[in-house]
Amino acid sequence: MAGTDKTAGRAEDGPVELDGPAMVLAQPQLGENIGAACRAMWNFGFSDLRLAAPRDGWPNPAAEAMASGADRVLQAARVYPDVVSATAALAHVYATTARPRELTKRVLTPREASAEIVSRHAAGERCGVLFGPERTGLENADVIRANAIIAVPANLAFASLNLAQCVLLMSYELRQAEMARRGEGREPMEEPMEEPMGERMGAGAAQHDAPATMAEVEGVAAHLIDQLDEAGHFWPEAKRPAMVASLRNFLSRAAMTGQDARMLRGVVRALSEKRRRRP
Amino acid sequence: MAGTDKTAGRAEDGPVELDGPAMVLAQPQLGENIGAACRAMWNFGFSDLRLAAPRDGWPNPAAEAMASGADRVLQAARVYPDVVSATAALAHVYATTARPRELTKRVLTPREASAEIVSRHAAGERCGVLFGPERTGLENADVIRANAIIAVPANLAFASLNLAQCVLLMSYELRQAEMARRGEGREPMEEPMEEPMGERMGAGAAQHDAPATMAEVEGVAAHLIDQLDEAGHFWPEAKRPAMVASLRNFLSRAAMTGQDARMLRGVVRALSEKRRRRP
Repeated sequence: MAGTDKTAGRAEDGPVELDGPAMVLAQPQLGENIGAACRAMWNFGFSDLRLAAPRDGWPNPAAEAMASGADRVLQAARVYPDVVSATAALAHVYATTARPRELTKRVLTPREASAEIVSRHAAGERCGVLFGPERTGLENADVIRANAIIAVPANLAFASLNLAQCVLLMSYELRQAEMARRGEGREPMEEPMEEPMGERMGAGAAQHDAPATMAEVEGVAAHLIDQLDEAGHFWPEAKRPAMVASLRNFLSRAAMTGQDARMLRGVVRALSEKRRRRP
Repeated sequence: MAGTDKTAGRAEDGPVELDGPAMVLAQPQLGENIGAACRAMWNFGFSDLRLAAPRDGWPNPAAEAMASGADRVLQAARVYPDVVSATAALAHVYATTARPRELTKRVLTPREASAEIVSRHAAGERCGVLFGPERTGLENADVIRANAIIAVPANLAFASLNLAQCVLLMSYELRQAEMARRGEGREPMEEPMEEPMGERMGAGAAQHDAPATMAEVEGVAAHLIDQLDEAGHFWPEAKRPAMVASLRNFLSRAAMTGQDARMLRGVVRALSEKRRRRP
């Protein structure tokens, strides 16, 4: 099944029903935390869990023990080799981070991000929230690829939230935002958030330009960087990482549509290659 | 520390300076949960913890181990023989409960309760949030004595939150409410951060750049279109206007900074020169 297929990096449309925005754990270390994240998600009715390169492999007995009561989420979890593949099919990725990053990227509170996510989700745009590994937090490369940053306004003297607690806060806020969107009051939920994603992604959504998926943005970035490498643009070599990061950061922020992505591929090709046959 | 001084001036007895509403744990069972509650409180800058008849006595080594980083809260915790004495000095007590009680009592969401609590707290009225023991939740007698009930709108199929998670959610909401009351924005609390977890973005990382001016965006667009014309990209000619419009539309939407604009000029130049060098 999908949850045990470690190489299922491309398996976006597995047999598992998708519920709500995805929670994507980047390189989670402790099985206990993965299990606790399952519980936190299910406490608020979310069940689309994606694991990018969990340190101890998968399945993980410690995760199973801790997920008790939220087995449904654990069983449906999908494992990917890396963050790029885990988020490839998503249109919007929000990176949670405790420490400030010197990136020119929108920084939202959990509440602001949740309002945005549920409205995008309702419009058929797949969203994901990305959580870094326990000790180190997200790598800059992952934050750069994200569309926006979520920063929890915490006590600066003690800002570090446990991974599962961070998932809990986001699940809580997403649920509150979803209830607000539906005009629901304070009553507990009558049903879990079973978002029939497939139905919502129907013909109607394709009318106006859909946002580019993460994979499409990555395609543009990779193509462009490749051509710039060939052009000897990243020079001196020592500056290459920062230059590449700036470029990627811009592309991730640029809110491109799928149509834009195709256009940009054409632009890069045209700029960098000698004109080919043309009548 | 500045981050904990916000409510100083509210005269509380005892040697320890208190901050914000009290968190009162009724008959907590596991030391680990008490320690985790300390961390959750301190994550959001609260430090008034009261324990009513902790099952394993006090001090509790398991609590100490788990409270790491929030020792301050643990050290300041006060222990009482029962809920009545733990809450005796408070003016308003809000009882958290997962299951519905057949009581005629106001039921608030965490968010509603938090707004009320911070406004009462600011008016000098001492407030406390009461949490029941892990397994059983609060006794009816304790709920009855409370002024209002807080019910977390969770997934009814899996509503039970861990004690520390419940403290976390309330601390989070109280902090958000407190920031809203003070008219603070999304910024984390004032206190300068002791740089957590090392590693920052490299030296080249942009500060928060100013958005590009219209002229800078136009400069990118004109340069790019010029080079694409030279490359014969806009073909057939009849499609040129629509293609140019799409490109300009993307560039205008992309929220580029001045830095981005300069970077993009460099990219266009590099790719164009590469093209021209091609045999």
